Amino acid sequence: MAQKPSIPKGTRDFSPDEMLRRNYIFDTIRSVFQHYGYMPIETPSMENLDTLLGKYGEEGDKLLFRVLNSGDFLSGLDKGLLEKADSQVLSSKICEKGLRYDLTVPFARFVVQHQSEIAFPFKRYQIQPVWRADRPQKGRYREFYQCDVDVVGSDSLLNEVELIQIVDEVYRRLNIRVLVKINNRKILAGIAETIGEADRMVDITVAIDKLDKIGLENVNKELEERGLSVKAIENLQPILALKGDNSQKLADLKQILKDSPTGLKGIEEITAVMDMVAGLELKTPVELDLTLARGLNYYTGAIFEVKALDVVIGSITGGGRYDDLTGIFGLKGVSGVGISFGADRIFDVMNQLNLYPETATVSTQLMFVNFGEMEALYCLKLASTLRSNGILCELYPDNAKLKKQMAYADRKGIPFVAVVGEEEMQKGLISLKNMQSGEQTTVTVEQVVAKLKV
Amino acid sequence: MAQKPSIPKGTRDFSPDEMLRRNYIFDTIRSVFQHYGYMPIETPSMENLDTLLGKYGEEGDKLLFRVLNSGDFLSGLDKGLLEKADSQVLSSKICEKGLRYDLTVPFARFVVQHQSEIAFPFKRYQIQPVWRADRPQKGRYREFYQCDVDVVGSDSLLNEVELIQIVDEVYRRLNIRVLVKINNRKILAGIAETIGEADRMVDITVAIDKLDKIGLENVNKELEERGLSVKAIENLQPILALKGDNSQKLADLKQILKDSPTGLKGIEEITAVMDMVAGLELKTPVELDLTLARGLNYYTGAIFEVKALDVVIGSITGGGRYDDLTGIFGLKGVSGVGISFGADRIFDVMNQLNLYPETATVSTQLMFVNFGEMEALYCLKLASTLRSNGILCELYPDNAKLKKQMAYADRKGIPFVAVVGEEEMQKGLISLKNMQSGEQTTVTVEQVVAKLKV
Repeated sequence: MAQKPSIPKGTRDFSPDEMLRRNYIFDTIRSVFQHYGYMPIETPSMENLDTLLGKYGEEGDKLLFRVLNSGDFLSGLDKGLLEKADSQVLSSKICEKGLRYDLTVPFARFVVQHQSEIAFPFKRYQIQPVWRADRPQKGRYREFYQCDVDVVGSDSLLNEVELIQIVDEVYRRLNIRVLVKINNRKILAGIAETIGEADRMVDITVAIDKLDKIGLENVNKELEERGLSVKAIENLQPILALKGDNSQKLADLKQILKDSPTGLKGIEEITAVMDMVAGLELKTPVELDLTLARGLNYYTGAIFEVKALDVVIGSITGGGRYDDLTGIFGLKGVSGVGISFGADRIFDVMNQLNLYPETATVSTQLMFVNFGEMEALYCLKLASTLRSNGILCELYPDNAKLKKQMAYADRKGIPFVAVVGEEEMQKGLISLKNMQSGEQTTVTVEQVVAKLKV
Repeated sequence: MAQKPSIPKGTRDFSPDEMLRRNYIFDTIRSVFQHYGYMPIETPSMENLDTLLGKYGEEGDKLLFRVLNSGDFLSGLDKGLLEKADSQVLSSKICEKGLRYDLTVPFARFVVQHQSEIAFPFKRYQIQPVWRADRPQKGRYREFYQCDVDVVGSDSLLNEVELIQIVDEVYRRLNIRVLVKINNRKILAGIAETIGEADRMVDITVAIDKLDKIGLENVNKELEERGLSVKAIENLQPILALKGDNSQKLADLKQILKDSPTGLKGIEEITAVMDMVAGLELKTPVELDLTLARGLNYYTGAIFEVKALDVVIGSITGGGRYDDLTGIFGLKGVSGVGISFGADRIFDVMNQLNLYPETATVSTQLMFVNFGEMEALYCLKLASTLRSNGILCELYPDNAKLKKQMAYADRKGIPFVAVVGEEEMQKGLISLKNMQSGEQTTVTVEQVVAKLKV
């Protein structure tokens, strides 16, 4: 093979430098999840296609990666079927498995399959890659990680509050300034109901969403074009005119939706959540956003989205409550609520703002120069001592030119180099070079430990 | 869907309990790798089939999971090809990608593809799942994790020594008693050369391997059956008769192989490694084992295998030196050495011997009982305080019966439950129940922190 090897389009290799940064993000998210009592699970990369098909809409089905059956996958197949050469029909005969498309459907499958072993309410988190045969483009990949955190088996709004706390804590620790937008599917349903267009929820939210950009007149024109009645558009005007802070808007909305029990229930829920959150003194502002609808149809209560304030990028976290997620696998009446952190977008935000603490991007703290066999053996023991004190260190493996060894340390971003030659061995000391300042000092092992211990 | 959902055969769900244990193993291994200056990388789950095919032998090619091309995968395909209905030929036309089979070939691909960005010697580790369409059986899965650690771009035997140090430290931390077996491919080549059967290396090691089980006479019979000449078998007798400790065996072997430069080079290498290791006072014994050959043909120097001493199970770690791994992707002359920790077998060993420290299997340390809205809001704030002190805690989300809440804590293995009712709120105290002993004490928040802080 003469040409340079490559990887499938839409996939990525992660270099050590990228991995250190990504692990910092994952470790932070994981630690917060754990502090709130969420437990990790993992599901297989491959699921039966039965499990996946029909859960993400027609478009989603097309984006599933299918895994060819092993062995003689054509054996027993009807000859006529092959001659018809219909990709869609054939794929269902030669593939039984697919790569998971998200973590939500496998989680629902997990809950149903293991329901007898689970202590409900089940608080779980899951950090794994997912695969989608999307057209690759900037910031969109065919393999990417999701970090999901969900509670199933509890209707309590305390769960919604807790998820907002988790968002607050994750982004506080990562040092990203964010805004939580919150809405409730029941409010959206109430609005549609109140203006007499119960099945036009999506059209309505899309139009409201454009208010800031295109102005009231154009929004009304668009609603007309989308086929809403003149009466409905007229009824919608008070909602488009809502002003003030969260509580003002909610108070006005309560009047407007007074004849919709669903709408009022939504207002009650969102008010309760906001009141509880207000008592917690979070850093993150929480804002009612009536335009928030989110694509997935299974949400039934709260809807969340998190926006980064200092970078122009789509939402970096989102989720909501779904009252019947496990119903698709035969377990009815189990309510859940959850959010998903978009690791790749968070990675982009962190990189753009360069928010990593110095300790997160250093791997080796100290390198011993290799001056030959005798010195190397001596340094191996010193290195063991340092490691047992928690210091990340290495000995350059070859007795190469000093310049080459230093260039390696420099390129790897190693902050300290230990020079231990005959003289240092005799005195039991270490010449320690600070690679940034160039400063060199002679110190004891204990002093090195004290200096480098994090 | 009425029937209970399931997952593909040979794959697994990991429950929270299993995940905590597995993460303990992965975290330990990762931490040791980092202490020795190894850097993480990740490669995509899917590689181009070009990259994978032909690297694992004919059998390996069959065990690759192939991913069906997206969209209309039959378009442009020759009609005659479909009519022939040859699975093998067709699969190469409708699948361009496959799931990775191990981490070594993707690593070699990575090194070649990114050679200009890498600081050599490149010390990398990689912990990711791999997939093989093996027949599922006890302890063998179709998706499993590998934990690989390698150095490429250095010939120094210090790397071999360091890998043995890493083995020692990983298993010392995990508290598993192990034995490192070591051999050198050059010694095996030297033996085959010396007895005049240079191309029968594998037959010879298989026969030697059976010495303890079937005795000398039967080994000689088997060698004859395998087609070795009488002369060769005669020449092999001194090697089968080797006795004593490592250095005795090596000294005798040096005499026997005195006319084979390759064999002598192997002895020199293994002696150097053992001498250096001897100076490091490791806990793990390192034993010369001439029967060690390992399946993979690319090893050219040291060969390692690690045996658990207290459980009957195959090798739990293995590896060796390969002088030309990246050659398959066009980069010649880059030597590497590495080992792979078998996470699933280590998991089995840890489970059988129950070697997990208590802290590794606890998720939530403390649960607040939920007595209703007012108490819950109060506890939310207490929980925030505890979390900011590093305590993993949760509030039961529903105002359910106390018995139900306690059963949940019990089932989740939460060691402490905080009961905060009206009285406790007034006094600013917490009634803390030890779930194991049943003991209940009234304490301050500070006392809870002091008690639970790890």
